[in-house]
Amino acid sequence: MSHSWTVPASSALRARALGPIASFDPESTPGFDGDKDSGTELLAERGRALADLQELLYANGRSGDHRSVLLVLQGMDTAGKGGIVRHVGGLVDPQGLSIKGFGKPTPEELQHDFLWRIRKALPPAGRIGIFDRSHYEDVLPVRVHNLVPRSEWEKRYAIINQFESELVASGTTVIKCCLVVSKDEQKKRLAERLDRPDKYWKYNPGDIDERAHWDDYLEAYQAIFDLTDHDAAPWYVIPANRKWFSRLAVCELLIDALSGLELDWPKADFDVESEKKRLAAAG
Amino acid sequence: MSHSWTVPASSALRARALGPIASFDPESTPGFDGDKDSGTELLAERGRALADLQELLYANGRSGDHRSVLLVLQGMDTAGKGGIVRHVGGLVDPQGLSIKGFGKPTPEELQHDFLWRIRKALPPAGRIGIFDRSHYEDVLPVRVHNLVPRSEWEKRYAIINQFESELVASGTTVIKCCLVVSKDEQKKRLAERLDRPDKYWKYNPGDIDERAHWDDYLEAYQAIFDLTDHDAAPWYVIPANRKWFSRLAVCELLIDALSGLELDWPKADFDVESEKKRLAAAG
Repeated sequence: MSHSWTVPASSALRARALGPIASFDPESTPGFDGDKDSGTELLAERGRALADLQELLYANGRSGDHRSVLLVLQGMDTAGKGGIVRHVGGLVDPQGLSIKGFGKPTPEELQHDFLWRIRKALPPAGRIGIFDRSHYEDVLPVRVHNLVPRSEWEKRYAIINQFESELVASGTTVIKCCLVVSKDEQKKRLAERLDRPDKYWKYNPGDIDERAHWDDYLEAYQAIFDLTDHDAAPWYVIPANRKWFSRLAVCELLIDALSGLELDWPKADFDVESEKKRLAAAG
Repeated sequence: MSHSWTVPASSALRARALGPIASFDPESTPGFDGDKDSGTELLAERGRALADLQELLYANGRSGDHRSVLLVLQGMDTAGKGGIVRHVGGLVDPQGLSIKGFGKPTPEELQHDFLWRIRKALPPAGRIGIFDRSHYEDVLPVRVHNLVPRSEWEKRYAIINQFESELVASGTTVIKCCLVVSKDEQKKRLAERLDRPDKYWKYNPGDIDERAHWDDYLEAYQAIFDLTDHDAAPWYVIPANRKWFSRLAVCELLIDALSGLELDWPKADFDVESEKKRLAAAG
């Protein structure tokens, strides 16, 4: 018998249901009772369900429905955000995705409020948007290093809540996933990047500097969960030491979000029978 | 024994090596001696090769290399352009793709020259761009229906050649694929869209009207091949009655384009040994 979720991912991984992030176990697989093999097998199966739902969303988007889904990915360096884009995003038609990575803001971006570049990258109707990092960077490194005065970053939580509730009101389903690796696992992954010439390009010396601020980052994440985890735009905390689990979990959360839209195939905006006749009569 | 290409796809499918498009056989599988099963099997295998090359391109793009690849897809309605995006694009990391579909120009686009919207959508460094329709629409429906005066569309072939040679000179490898279905096969595919409620959204009554101009479109495609098929930005003609073959062929052409870049993993822009020491010393 195949293993599966004993508790729905959307309950088992919800940020506010968990204890403090500092005592979270990145090796765990909350809600799932299977091992790597059964998880990998289930991902392939659920991937097909995700692809079907994505096509429904896309079809509706092409037919005038303005809804979209936005998956926000956050997490420490090496937590596997890129792997989620590749291995979960890769399960669906790439045409239906709108992927955007947010790095250090450009000079142009810095001349605008912090949500400017975010708003520009929101997914069009019918798409699944994936943000690899996001507006939450503006309360993560920005907070840890006080890149703007505390009085400014402190206000951002409320601004983010306001922004996200507007987003949801205008038809975007928002789910936010924080991938959590342990400090040891991060060290292992950084070491691998330094050991393999085909991984050098992923290595950034700055990652070691950021590692020194590990606890400050945990505190900044805790503040995010405390202040911005709402039912309308929930935060999920994804243990990410086991990549197979984090991929399975995010896939499941996306399925849950898409299922919530209760989509059906768009009705024909033409007369089917008369089109059939026209086609039969055509050369 | 597995079947494979008896002639490289880049030779067997090159537009200028073929006779007139009007006598082209959309059922054929030029250069490939296998059937559907062996073609499907080969696609899975070659898909992994494509994914590896795409990762190399992406890695180089992230490390300062400005090169990119652009796949231009054209073809009659129902020829399977979307299927190529899904099934060939879907073989690689979606993060490395830059997909853009071009529909009827918007009022804003019409206020600019016809290449304006094209230039805005060119792939960033390290990406594989896929254009689902392209600037060639401006010498296809535009020519067939004289949406601009003949004196204007006639000039566009030279403008396109100039544009593409600039593009190539600035580091974008361009390959152009025209998917060709037979008129009978199109009728079958349109009928299927009218028979299946899950396909209504793909049906457009205008497709029947365009079908009445079939020969004019063939003539317009012939002009494109005659005037814009250059070694620097070649046209390939892909028989598309058999979807498995068109997907296999485009995958192979992409592999060929990427291999031509002779990419290697980017060198480290940091001192590997001293970073190893820093990491070991870090907490």
